[in-house]
Amino acid sequence: MEILVLSGLAQKLFDDIRDISSDGVGVTRASYGEGETATANYLQVFAEDEGLHVETDRAANLIFSLPDTLERDPSIWVGSHMDSVPQGGNFDGLAGIIAGLLCLIAQKQRGQSSATPLRVIAFRGEESAWFGKAYMGSGSIFGRLSAEDLKLKHRSTGKPLSSYMEQVGADTAAIAAQELLFDKKKAKAYLELHIEQGPIMVARKIPLGVVPGIRGNVRHNRVTCIGEAGHSGAVPRWLRHDAMFAVAELITRLDEHWRVLLERGIDLVVTTGIVGTDPAEHSISRIPGVVNFSFEARSKSDDTLEDFYQLMRSECEAIARERGVTFEFDRRLESAPAVMDETICAALADSCDRNGTSYETVPSGAGHDASLFTSAGIPSGMLFIRNQNGSHNPHEAMDLADFMLGVRVLSYAIDHL
Amino acid sequence: MEILVLSGLAQKLFDDIRDISSDGVGVTRASYGEGETATANYLQVFAEDEGLHVETDRAANLIFSLPDTLERDPSIWVGSHMDSVPQGGNFDGLAGIIAGLLCLIAQKQRGQSSATPLRVIAFRGEESAWFGKAYMGSGSIFGRLSAEDLKLKHRSTGKPLSSYMEQVGADTAAIAAQELLFDKKKAKAYLELHIEQGPIMVARKIPLGVVPGIRGNVRHNRVTCIGEAGHSGAVPRWLRHDAMFAVAELITRLDEHWRVLLERGIDLVVTTGIVGTDPAEHSISRIPGVVNFSFEARSKSDDTLEDFYQLMRSECEAIARERGVTFEFDRRLESAPAVMDETICAALADSCDRNGTSYETVPSGAGHDASLFTSAGIPSGMLFIRNQNGSHNPHEAMDLADFMLGVRVLSYAIDHL
Repeated sequence: MEILVLSGLAQKLFDDIRDISSDGVGVTRASYGEGETATANYLQVFAEDEGLHVETDRAANLIFSLPDTLERDPSIWVGSHMDSVPQGGNFDGLAGIIAGLLCLIAQKQRGQSSATPLRVIAFRGEESAWFGKAYMGSGSIFGRLSAEDLKLKHRSTGKPLSSYMEQVGADTAAIAAQELLFDKKKAKAYLELHIEQGPIMVARKIPLGVVPGIRGNVRHNRVTCIGEAGHSGAVPRWLRHDAMFAVAELITRLDEHWRVLLERGIDLVVTTGIVGTDPAEHSISRIPGVVNFSFEARSKSDDTLEDFYQLMRSECEAIARERGVTFEFDRRLESAPAVMDETICAALADSCDRNGTSYETVPSGAGHDASLFTSAGIPSGMLFIRNQNGSHNPHEAMDLADFMLGVRVLSYAIDHL
Repeated sequence: MEILVLSGLAQKLFDDIRDISSDGVGVTRASYGEGETATANYLQVFAEDEGLHVETDRAANLIFSLPDTLERDPSIWVGSHMDSVPQGGNFDGLAGIIAGLLCLIAQKQRGQSSATPLRVIAFRGEESAWFGKAYMGSGSIFGRLSAEDLKLKHRSTGKPLSSYMEQVGADTAAIAAQELLFDKKKAKAYLELHIEQGPIMVARKIPLGVVPGIRGNVRHNRVTCIGEAGHSGAVPRWLRHDAMFAVAELITRLDEHWRVLLERGIDLVVTTGIVGTDPAEHSISRIPGVVNFSFEARSKSDDTLEDFYQLMRSECEAIARERGVTFEFDRRLESAPAVMDETICAALADSCDRNGTSYETVPSGAGHDASLFTSAGIPSGMLFIRNQNGSHNPHEAMDLADFMLGVRVLSYAIDHL
């Protein structure tokens, strides 16, 4: 059966899930929260109606498979995540899950499973926007979420991650003990289809990308710059300890370093996604005494991450000395860069060729659940779908035709791995 | 009677009002809000108990006087404001009102009013922290608050200034029509005692300062920098339109200009008291698409204000061009620099001499209600009291002894003007 006939079904799934998680601007599917759970419930009902087997793992992720392949191992796993950032787009994460489900449905409709059985996993908690940590769902099953991580606080409610995970049925005791909740022997490979989150494929006019590796990152959710509040009109410059001017100078210096490093051919992106004076006390006529900000650097290279991190710390020290402010750092968080499996990359590239589809090799600037499988030693690969306007915003725009091309390439690769 | 015996009463007034407006950190006496009204009610009851006459003007400011001087005009007016910034200090504003009340009580206790009668005015709404505009209470009585100003929104509730003013009984129709609600013929002079809000007098070890003039300012409550949101890992630097990096560069450039202008001997302070990414959509892994910030410059010179404002606008244009962002400005707000009356300054200086108190001439970096009297053509003067740790913060520290020295100097000046 030609899988492209499932195009109408794909559209319906995207539309329905957009509707149930709409926030009026984009979609909001909070990790372990409302929109994510509504999506999980929808997918479970849909899959059961299609005659698929659905189970929940101990981290509350959903696993879909053909009922008659339940006892056959190892499998090829295809997955991605259900959650989104606040006011995010509909395709980031969801595309990979729907792609996997379409492959399963195609197998069911043709009455024949792939030689290596297919399991589709829909992760919860991939986005760091909610608790300041990414890959919570996939990290949990590989014992990579710690007891300390479970105490991370929700961005708006301040309640800990553990309470949110328990609410959806995750075994937080096992997760805190860093038990391995995924049987690696059951996985021959992990594949993930995902929209490209950068502008590269649109610029190059290629619908599909084979991902050789994923950038790692180093982060602080919250750095606090502490200066001294004061009346804006009455404190001369030489006596000021303005936390905002200090943070502005830090960001400007980091941007300058970044520019110089790029000119030297070094792979790096730098972002301060959250910056703000304190709403409880700030005003137009008050020198900011405190500014909180987040820090993130991403690179394909571990060395670059470490070097840039140390550069950031030493710039903070210099500014602290010059301006009479102090910087306080919360816990340093890291995700290691991940290299995709060569055999799987070759199989995805071959599938593109066999299906007459052009593709290019496109490294991933964003992190993905696939990193967790890679670092667990499971051969992994990723397929990117062309997408306009980036992601983490409501203007994501993936053509359904590109997506279906990707599903066909994925399905062929599953049959031939 | 030696006015210094009222020291215990002064302490009680400061303590009581601190208690009723405490927020656990500092004091919060919101303009036309809870803490300010509690202070007004307390002062009214206190003054009536002391046998003073209390009335409310059409802008809901309180006026205190000796009952037997009601028909005598013109008067010497002594005033300051009841409100504070959020988590502010207890002395900013309140000191001037208590000083005036102590002078009235001293006159009452000695059984003789000053040759020119004394009226004390306790203003509401001096702080710009709540509605983004300063001198609302004193501006109202001089027809300087416009219908447009009355639409300014409260920083947290978003409700307009007019509704807050009406709630405390102000005649907003007259205020919107810019009626003159203060009879200038009734004022021979305006005096204001205020804590110094900068660090100069502590550094110079002088308890009292005679203020020759007040800095003016130019402001925007909200400038919006609009860039383009995107996934932090996936958009390379050359395709970014990061609103936060743009604002950081703007602030850093303004700081650099400020430093250079100071070296050339120009009077200027620059503050961005409120800066922030949008809490509704920001996250660690999202390039900020929007940043809001406030802008304020203050100077003794009108020309400097205009020049620096234009410099700020042209830097915004340059950054907009370079980074592919745009800047949107709300209404430009201004307060003109104010020059104090020479005769009154001389009288205050003479009073310091006669009372054996050292003083210096200290220009005011902060704005005060006195500016409104000055621009209404009423001869005005200000007396600064030494104060540690600036103002607009909970750590204001004025010695009661310094304050009582100031009250004595003020009282003597009132008797001899």
